[in-house]
Amino acid sequence: MSADAETIRYHAATENSAAAVDLIDQTRLPAETVRLVCSTLPELHDAIVRLVVRGAPAIGIAAAYGVTLAPIDANASPAEVRQSYYEAIDYLATSRPTAVNLFWALDRMRGIVDAATDDAIGNLAQRLADEAIAIHEEDREMCRSMGRHGSALLTKCQTVLTHCNTGGLATSMYGTALAPIYFLHEKGHTLNVYADETRPLMQGARLTAWELAQAGVPVTVCTDSMAGGLMRDGKVDAVIVGSDRIAANGDVANKIGTYPLSVLARYHNVPFYVVAPTNTFDLELASGDLIPIEQRGEDEMRYTLGAESNIHANGRMAVPREAAVINPAFDVTPAELVTAIVTELGVIESPNVERVRQHFAAS
Amino acid sequence: MSADAETIRYHAATENSAAAVDLIDQTRLPAETVRLVCSTLPELHDAIVRLVVRGAPAIGIAAAYGVTLAPIDANASPAEVRQSYYEAIDYLATSRPTAVNLFWALDRMRGIVDAATDDAIGNLAQRLADEAIAIHEEDREMCRSMGRHGSALLTKCQTVLTHCNTGGLATSMYGTALAPIYFLHEKGHTLNVYADETRPLMQGARLTAWELAQAGVPVTVCTDSMAGGLMRDGKVDAVIVGSDRIAANGDVANKIGTYPLSVLARYHNVPFYVVAPTNTFDLELASGDLIPIEQRGEDEMRYTLGAESNIHANGRMAVPREAAVINPAFDVTPAELVTAIVTELGVIESPNVERVRQHFAAS
Repeated sequence: MSADAETIRYHAATENSAAAVDLIDQTRLPAETVRLVCSTLPELHDAIVRLVVRGAPAIGIAAAYGVTLAPIDANASPAEVRQSYYEAIDYLATSRPTAVNLFWALDRMRGIVDAATDDAIGNLAQRLADEAIAIHEEDREMCRSMGRHGSALLTKCQTVLTHCNTGGLATSMYGTALAPIYFLHEKGHTLNVYADETRPLMQGARLTAWELAQAGVPVTVCTDSMAGGLMRDGKVDAVIVGSDRIAANGDVANKIGTYPLSVLARYHNVPFYVVAPTNTFDLELASGDLIPIEQRGEDEMRYTLGAESNIHANGRMAVPREAAVINPAFDVTPAELVTAIVTELGVIESPNVERVRQHFAAS
Repeated sequence: MSADAETIRYHAATENSAAAVDLIDQTRLPAETVRLVCSTLPELHDAIVRLVVRGAPAIGIAAAYGVTLAPIDANASPAEVRQSYYEAIDYLATSRPTAVNLFWALDRMRGIVDAATDDAIGNLAQRLADEAIAIHEEDREMCRSMGRHGSALLTKCQTVLTHCNTGGLATSMYGTALAPIYFLHEKGHTLNVYADETRPLMQGARLTAWELAQAGVPVTVCTDSMAGGLMRDGKVDAVIVGSDRIAANGDVANKIGTYPLSVLARYHNVPFYVVAPTNTFDLELASGDLIPIEQRGEDEMRYTLGAESNIHANGRMAVPREAAVINPAFDVTPAELVTAIVTELGVIESPNVERVRQHFAAS
């Protein structure tokens, strides 16, 4: 991924300039590639709220860097310095109330502030920047490991189909389901990718197609409803998707439209792979039936994409007022339809409760 | 369907007013219900070109009425009168070059002009109006028969799922796949209908949802990608779709996204019904593999619905320029995934080449 296409960049403070978090504005994609440089907390907070940066890992990384934007008075006492950072953390935590990675990343930053003694307060800014960089780097490493493990499954493939956006725009570099594709591309094995549009928010058409094209991977956008015909025509060697939550038995919650792909893949003898870091597993949940499914707002269904692509309210009416709409954000694919789950630790073939347990025990 | 919701109305010429063809402007649906009254040939031609009226049977009916709008000079000779009508027929035939029903309807109107002797020329205008009304009425009858035959299959259903627009907006009154739903509704058995959006042109969201709601049938719009989850949750008792072309063995070409519904229906033990008049069969074609699939323009994929809902060029960019798109208009569902085909003649259960032959032989 070229520097222009990096989802999140960090400009450390220098003698002449304050620190800044530099983001691709994902609301402007794919029509325009515009970066938004946030040098204040309210700017970054607003960027997360407006989905300028989206995708759970990317939100966590952006927020971690964001803590370093806290305004610190040069004459402040150590207690006042710590207080300013705590306030920054609490403020950033209000940006997306349900994003687990956001809280996880901010908790790590809070730990750094907690550990800063009065004597070491002069180094706190640097230690916070180092921790945010470490979070970013760990995410890169995790994506890279998923890419390596997943690539072994795709060595005989020429064309894969993916759903939603699970690449660098949602994470740091490689992404999850796109990681094996990027990994192979760097090794000289370039796959052709079909990107499902992914109604209603069109993340496949807008974001996956954009980032794969930027990386030089040939990508073709199809409607969600075309995937079945492509499989029947023998044009898809594997389906590869990410996940939002995986139960202890290997049932996979992911973007709406994933489950029908798993049924179609099984019917056409196409392998169906899920790529997700181990922190996606919720081992407290015995099966996917227990995963709560977020019901999103009606306007995403009732209006086409408006002036800002994530915001539908300015779009054209697509559904008459008299008709009802449903808008579940996710569906659940049962483990028996999953060929393998790839994590940063390796591959779980034909996942079930025992194999998931073994995967975690081996780590 | 109420008078306001009638797709096509004909205002016969009176002493005080010229004849007119009165259409629901389908490009304005569902945001606005506006009628367009065409009293000249160019107005009607333009309405067909701009998809104000769409759906093969509806286009044929509108064009048949359109012939009566030919400008006839009160002092014209019989030869000149016939010539004016022939010119009107040839002109209307240029509006949608691939619509089979358009040519079929105009051929019937041409036959009336051919048969008009010089002595009978004074009655030709009336005879043309009568023929157009007959074409309209025959379509209503055919839809009603499909509704009656199809309704027998749905008596135990509470909720059905449909795809694209196959109702009164595309035909005269009842439609094809929606005909059994309207038929049952009139008998007091009202089904709940899930209408797939039907990407990329959104006919399900825009048109099916609108006409069902107008008729008082409860309708819920879902993305094409939600249908599989609804079936798994037991919320769909039957899938019911129309067809654009059926091969001699019962393979069914229909709007893109139909084939995956047939696979999902089979996987979930949900019956899958096709409703289409016998003139949809192309008995020259041994199987669906031989049905040519129209590839439509890229803009339907690259842009969201624009200012006029059938025209994407004014919409927002949804796919980056660097990505390819595919846009097949139809897919083919093999006969073995079809539970039954309903025509105006009756029902073909588990269609195959022999049963299709018997269906036609019995008529």
